[in-house]
Amino acid sequence: MREMQTDPLTTTFAALADPTRRAILNRLSRGEATVLELAEPFEISLPAISRHLKVLEQAGLISRGREAQWRPCRIETPALERVDGWVGHYRKLWDSRFDRMDSYIASLTKGTPDAEQ
Amino acid sequence: MREMQTDPLTTTFAALADPTRRAILNRLSRGEATVLELAEPFEISLPAISRHLKVLEQAGLISRGREAQWRPCRIETPALERVDGWVGHYRKLWDSRFDRMDSYIASLTKGTPDAEQ
Repeated sequence: MREMQTDPLTTTFAALADPTRRAILNRLSRGEATVLELAEPFEISLPAISRHLKVLEQAGLISRGREAQWRPCRIETPALERVDGWVGHYRKLWDSRFDRMDSYIASLTKGTPDAEQ
Repeated sequence: MREMQTDPLTTTFAALADPTRRAILNRLSRGEATVLELAEPFEISLPAISRHLKVLEQAGLISRGREAQWRPCRIETPALERVDGWVGHYRKLWDSRFDRMDSYIASLTKGTPDAEQ
């Protein structure tokens, strides 16, 4: 029930709020991998890795092959693109801050006290 | 204890995994606001808004003025810039996908399998 009411961005951010899951995504950004390959660098159990993969899959951040034995994991970008789009809305806040700093520095080097605001 | 072991990115993603908190950030991206102003568009209690603000503040996404009465909230960008940097690492995944699509379309329209340019 709760699952259905949660918007995609909330599900994605919740899935990303874990360093192990972000490390798994990082590994998958270099190519497909099996659960065993993904588990190797971590000192946690296979069932724990599987739980993390399930969270990532439910958030649409990864998909898994259908071959029963291997089921290779693959990174999926649409959820990440949504995060990119979301944070992009705020990018102007620090861009404009740097723009202001640029014009301030320019006004200093010119020695003219440029029209303040 | 748990708080101290959590890395900044995890804290930030956890704070962003809530539509009300993201709506508050969106409002603050247009300028400072008091708790009362922030609460106005939401059908939730002031204490609930205050709890959301505390989560955002602990994640470094907002700061609050020290004047006891008003304590205006202000958006802080470093945590968002960290999210931007993190997702930026993955941007090449969909950029390269579009690049590949571009060269495929180019090869189709030219009728040659190899791109000259």
